[in-house]
Amino acid sequence: MITIRKTSEESITALTSREVESQDVTEVVAEILADVKQNGDEAIRAYTKKFDGAKLAELHVSEAEISSAIQETTPEFLAVLEQAKQNIQQFHEKQVQRGFITTDEQGTVMGQRVIPLEKVGVYVPGGTAAYPSTVLMDVLPAKIAGVSKIVMITPPNAEGKIPTAILAAAKIAGVDEIYKVGGAQGVAALAYGTESLPKVDKIVGPGNIFVATAKRMVYGLVDIDMIAGPSDVLIVADESANPRWLAADLLAQAEHDALAQAILVTTNEELAQAVQVELQAQLDALPRKEIAQHSIDNNGKLIVAKDIEEALAIANQVAPEHLELCVAEPFSLLGKVKHAGSVFLGHYTPEVLGDYFAGPNHTLPTEGTARFSSPLSVDDFIKKSSYLYYSKEALHTVANQVIDFAEMEGLSGHARSMRVRKEEL
Amino acid sequence: MITIRKTSEESITALTSREVESQDVTEVVAEILADVKQNGDEAIRAYTKKFDGAKLAELHVSEAEISSAIQETTPEFLAVLEQAKQNIQQFHEKQVQRGFITTDEQGTVMGQRVIPLEKVGVYVPGGTAAYPSTVLMDVLPAKIAGVSKIVMITPPNAEGKIPTAILAAAKIAGVDEIYKVGGAQGVAALAYGTESLPKVDKIVGPGNIFVATAKRMVYGLVDIDMIAGPSDVLIVADESANPRWLAADLLAQAEHDALAQAILVTTNEELAQAVQVELQAQLDALPRKEIAQHSIDNNGKLIVAKDIEEALAIANQVAPEHLELCVAEPFSLLGKVKHAGSVFLGHYTPEVLGDYFAGPNHTLPTEGTARFSSPLSVDDFIKKSSYLYYSKEALHTVANQVIDFAEMEGLSGHARSMRVRKEEL
Repeated sequence: MITIRKTSEESITALTSREVESQDVTEVVAEILADVKQNGDEAIRAYTKKFDGAKLAELHVSEAEISSAIQETTPEFLAVLEQAKQNIQQFHEKQVQRGFITTDEQGTVMGQRVIPLEKVGVYVPGGTAAYPSTVLMDVLPAKIAGVSKIVMITPPNAEGKIPTAILAAAKIAGVDEIYKVGGAQGVAALAYGTESLPKVDKIVGPGNIFVATAKRMVYGLVDIDMIAGPSDVLIVADESANPRWLAADLLAQAEHDALAQAILVTTNEELAQAVQVELQAQLDALPRKEIAQHSIDNNGKLIVAKDIEEALAIANQVAPEHLELCVAEPFSLLGKVKHAGSVFLGHYTPEVLGDYFAGPNHTLPTEGTARFSSPLSVDDFIKKSSYLYYSKEALHTVANQVIDFAEMEGLSGHARSMRVRKEEL
Repeated sequence: MITIRKTSEESITALTSREVESQDVTEVVAEILADVKQNGDEAIRAYTKKFDGAKLAELHVSEAEISSAIQETTPEFLAVLEQAKQNIQQFHEKQVQRGFITTDEQGTVMGQRVIPLEKVGVYVPGGTAAYPSTVLMDVLPAKIAGVSKIVMITPPNAEGKIPTAILAAAKIAGVDEIYKVGGAQGVAALAYGTESLPKVDKIVGPGNIFVATAKRMVYGLVDIDMIAGPSDVLIVADESANPRWLAADLLAQAEHDALAQAILVTTNEELAQAVQVELQAQLDALPRKEIAQHSIDNNGKLIVAKDIEEALAIANQVAPEHLELCVAEPFSLLGKVKHAGSVFLGHYTPEVLGDYFAGPNHTLPTEGTARFSSPLSVDDFIKKSSYLYYSKEALHTVANQVIDFAEMEGLSGHARSMRVRKEEL
């Protein structure tokens, strides 16, 4: 049974430490990247055979495969996907940035344009579970941004097939091209381009340690969204919270991954005890019990804080991916939250609502990176470009100041670029 | 003398290839990072002695040092710094993003907050030239974003001193703390924290290959702005352009760095010939001739395109850091520019205007990364955090759809988090 720990007995740092993955796969990934860069499709096919067990003649998913996937999906689930799409679109449309312009009477014009990225690659993990929600969450903001070409990659199963739900979600989201390739080799294909796959400008989407390492290594040649780590939730709860609901929310997080982290911070010790009992009871009923048990045993925490201020201090220290405020007056605490990917307010907003359906993105900063990172958004699929125009008169006005600055920095060639114009004015 | 090349004789890819730095300093940098992580200030002092020749008792720059730097700076130059500050502030204030909220009648509230980063580290390069402009360009957007603590680091000279212009600019920009440390050890100090230096959330600013490699290696633990490479300019010019001015602008870029790249693309072969002659004449007059000559010889290009459309296609292929449109009607081409850090419009807007003074940021995406990266901006110093609230009624309305989605993704614990609430509704 998971221990209840108190801030009166331990430091916040000790309370919030977590098990981390330390596997270094850099060498393996570097080799795969180099191989794909040099050998293209041939290398992709070899790795797909080796890692996924699939012998593929064609990497590109055909229109026929997509159509039959749609036909194999139930109308009910297609309707859920369509509703989720609508909700996600509505939320993300609010994120659209506009350019700006400034002008003055001397004849200067300056500003910033907002330009969509041209080509984006979306990685969708394979493996035991299929996550169509990831397809919607990663593709729809790119569509709203105006990306011209969205290329999705995902590993096939041993029969060379992609789950129908993934293909259906890709079709609904508006993916332009889909390829059967995963792992570091998939990231390499998108970063360098191959005979079949186009080189893209940015790669987004979650993946295992091989995918994450490959993304880190190609960062700079292409952009990436973030290095995703295991998922986490922190729940701040007061005496108004329902322990059964809290335990269910903690376990929903824990079932993702043995390295996932689920933390409860409460001001009420009795609530912590009730959650402790519920956790054990509900764990036994979970199909993914083994994973959830490992996560709870290693990274699960029940913490009793002395007051709500301290509970929020712990939350800000952890900078959780998901923060639930299961308290009577959740909006009163929102302004105290400094670092969290997404905040779920009140008793009727379990984190699960954000995973599929509500509208905000579920791709969120993990492992404390909410200190400096943001949820995936339309902003991830645009770039900005500034522009300047000076009239002859405006240039004349500032010429001496710019020349002084350039000379002070020791760059006479810079000063000269102003002087040659000034001479002829 | 630099060759004139024509699109009729070579492919755009061949025309735009460039010399790149391939030095791998990963091992050296990894060792420095590990040493600073473990030994803190002691390691910093040892590296500062080794690399900068300075034996420092105190890493922190005192108020007295800053005051005397201000006194040693001429009033004229302080006035130029103040004017530059005002221009940069006015431009960057337009970049401030606001949060948003969406509500509906069922009782859902969702939105996105914009939160400043707490602590930011700014790297200012040392070496032969002092760049106070970098201080203004990197610090002012952070101030506007609302960053609580801005920590500047820069390597000292052998006497343990920082150039007065750098300290004056730091004071004017509003830096909170300054430390005498550079190189990979400086990046490590900001990423891990030491006895003297605070750990920050993000590290920005240009630096040499050691600094860039260190930034790449700590990325994820902290955020970084970008991996800066050598600077570049591409000028698109028509027959209305002045060859003397174009040559001066190309050389202003070339004097930065032997690896810098300066390209002219023109529709007019006579103009190219005139620039070719001017380049040689002006090179001889440059104090930094040796650097500029190397850059021009290796990466300088004079390209004759068949028409303005093709000239823009070359510009978009290169995705230059700086793009000058030295043509009669520059605004008519702006919409054709897909990839450029900053665009300088017309004959009286040399790139140099953007380096110090006009307002837009001079920290721009290099080496073609303008395909997916943006100028440094206020956006680099904020993060976004989403929030969701569902009322009991709103939860009830969507419960079944969310449960279906969760079960379809094979996550029963997720479905359960909804069910336990639905049961009790």
